[in-house]
Amino acid sequence: MTTSSPGLVPLAAVEAAAERIRGTVVRTPMIPDTDLSESLGGEVRLKCESLQKAGAFKARGACNFMARLSPEDLARGVITYSSGNHAQAVAFAAGLKGVRAVVVMPTTAPRVKSDGARHLGARVEFAGTTSEHRRARAEEIAEAEGLVMVPPFDHPWIIAGQGTVALEVFEDWPEVDTLVVPIGGGGQMAGCAAALRRLRPEASVFGVEPAGAPTMRRALDAGGPETLERIDTIADGLAPTRAGDLTFAHAAALLDDVVLVNDDDIRRAAAHLITRRKLVVEYSGAATVAALMSGRVGAAGRNVCAVLSGGNLDTSLLGEILGAA
Amino acid sequence: MTTSSPGLVPLAAVEAAAERIRGTVVRTPMIPDTDLSESLGGEVRLKCESLQKAGAFKARGACNFMARLSPEDLARGVITYSSGNHAQAVAFAAGLKGVRAVVVMPTTAPRVKSDGARHLGARVEFAGTTSEHRRARAEEIAEAEGLVMVPPFDHPWIIAGQGTVALEVFEDWPEVDTLVVPIGGGGQMAGCAAALRRLRPEASVFGVEPAGAPTMRRALDAGGPETLERIDTIADGLAPTRAGDLTFAHAAALLDDVVLVNDDDIRRAAAHLITRRKLVVEYSGAATVAALMSGRVGAAGRNVCAVLSGGNLDTSLLGEILGAA
Repeated sequence: MTTSSPGLVPLAAVEAAAERIRGTVVRTPMIPDTDLSESLGGEVRLKCESLQKAGAFKARGACNFMARLSPEDLARGVITYSSGNHAQAVAFAAGLKGVRAVVVMPTTAPRVKSDGARHLGARVEFAGTTSEHRRARAEEIAEAEGLVMVPPFDHPWIIAGQGTVALEVFEDWPEVDTLVVPIGGGGQMAGCAAALRRLRPEASVFGVEPAGAPTMRRALDAGGPETLERIDTIADGLAPTRAGDLTFAHAAALLDDVVLVNDDDIRRAAAHLITRRKLVVEYSGAATVAALMSGRVGAAGRNVCAVLSGGNLDTSLLGEILGAA
Repeated sequence: MTTSSPGLVPLAAVEAAAERIRGTVVRTPMIPDTDLSESLGGEVRLKCESLQKAGAFKARGACNFMARLSPEDLARGVITYSSGNHAQAVAFAAGLKGVRAVVVMPTTAPRVKSDGARHLGARVEFAGTTSEHRRARAEEIAEAEGLVMVPPFDHPWIIAGQGTVALEVFEDWPEVDTLVVPIGGGGQMAGCAAALRRLRPEASVFGVEPAGAPTMRRALDAGGPETLERIDTIADGLAPTRAGDLTFAHAAALLDDVVLVNDDDIRRAAAHLITRRKLVVEYSGAATVAALMSGRVGAAGRNVCAVLSGGNLDTSLLGEILGAA
């Protein structure tokens, strides 16, 4: 296992991203989870990207990407495709620079996310239900309108931006020895693993996917990304149909393991976070805690940080979640 | 206006409390509220005591009080009376020291708070519906069982502990020029005002009470605490029937004003915090934001920190709150 493999994002790129986005994104707090620490016999802390601007870690990568575009590219405007959080992040980052933004979301996107992107000033287009559908539509629009594509995860600028989560975790808790990160396309996992394994080589990094959308698990088992035929999970932010090529390379080189959690685990974790920790998280944001609570990532005797990746929950789901408490 | 009046808690006592409770309580985060900052034309940040141990700022005062008791007093065990958050805080602080704790709560206490105190190891007794009822019952039990009383607010050790909230606000944001604190009995207000007005004399400090429980407002208007005949508010944590003598002295000497918010303002503020800020707060914890959103405390051009005092919301209320969104 090495972090100097060709193609992997270097620590210096993550540190440069942190400088670039400082003051633009929130330096999110890490909160101790006293209940989980007691019940699991380790020290568990929660990195609250649910409290990030636009409600998810995605603001980090989008702001870093936008900061690297030339004035000419910014003048053209930007476009992206996303299940929702990256769409809001691009809308947010573009809005700060006064840049035109178009976002393509699935017809099934949670209302809180499409409304959020619109509220942040983006033009929202809907296309299909899978990441392939919306990517194709975004590429069409980009071509027709001359817009610059901001990829949702498989790009070094995006990965470097998301990796700033791990920089902050390490700054606040140098003794951390286990980092648990959710995997959708893998951008946050890739950036966090690239940063933490250089800063603290003895630390373990685990990725978590829904059992109904195991793209990175499948890619690792198959030796490369494959397109899943069927996605079935309540965690809408962790449900692309295929891992990225670059994010896969990071997973293969840097992760200790990718574990799977089922929807019931996720519901229980979300209920715990809302009722006990007073944090509103979306299902995708609760996946890492689900991995701890279900024992799929061990915490006994460890210093474990779980990333709560986002908080953009449709509030109509609160009743459903609290039913699982 | 002076902070050297006899009887007021000195800054040094708050600083000593901070040393005493360091590592025992959470150093809570302060989160920017981008929506309120934009709509109110100031910089608004939220001090998240909802994320404190036992779910409210009360852990600070209780831990400071317990740290000052002699081994003999600790061996006797402690008792308190409380609408709920101070009860949980005393249970928490006593549990850490292996000390027996009894808490007397109103028969109307939110389930989340009575269960919380029990979960933390306290014996829970119920008595009446007002602060007078439960105080009388607690004094009876203290006498009968030889327990040490931990007052809910009107004591210099409690006030000094609660004041550590303002120390952290000032450390994190030296430019803060307006602090907004809720008033139940007034312990947090008193400690925060005592600290901040010494650290930053030019800053304003506002207290917020429910219109249906205006104990400190009435005390200021009357020149001293008076017992209210009737309390009517959804903010169960801000509803004692009478201000403290010591907390009143702090309010009279140090506050810029005490403003009143109604229950609808509070519901709207709680809905904003849950849906937009992803923070679960109880009604009492949303009162300061209600004061800002309703314009009763001005934020235009100011650096405003609003304290979210607690997060112990009965989750059955989430539906009611979200209906107000």
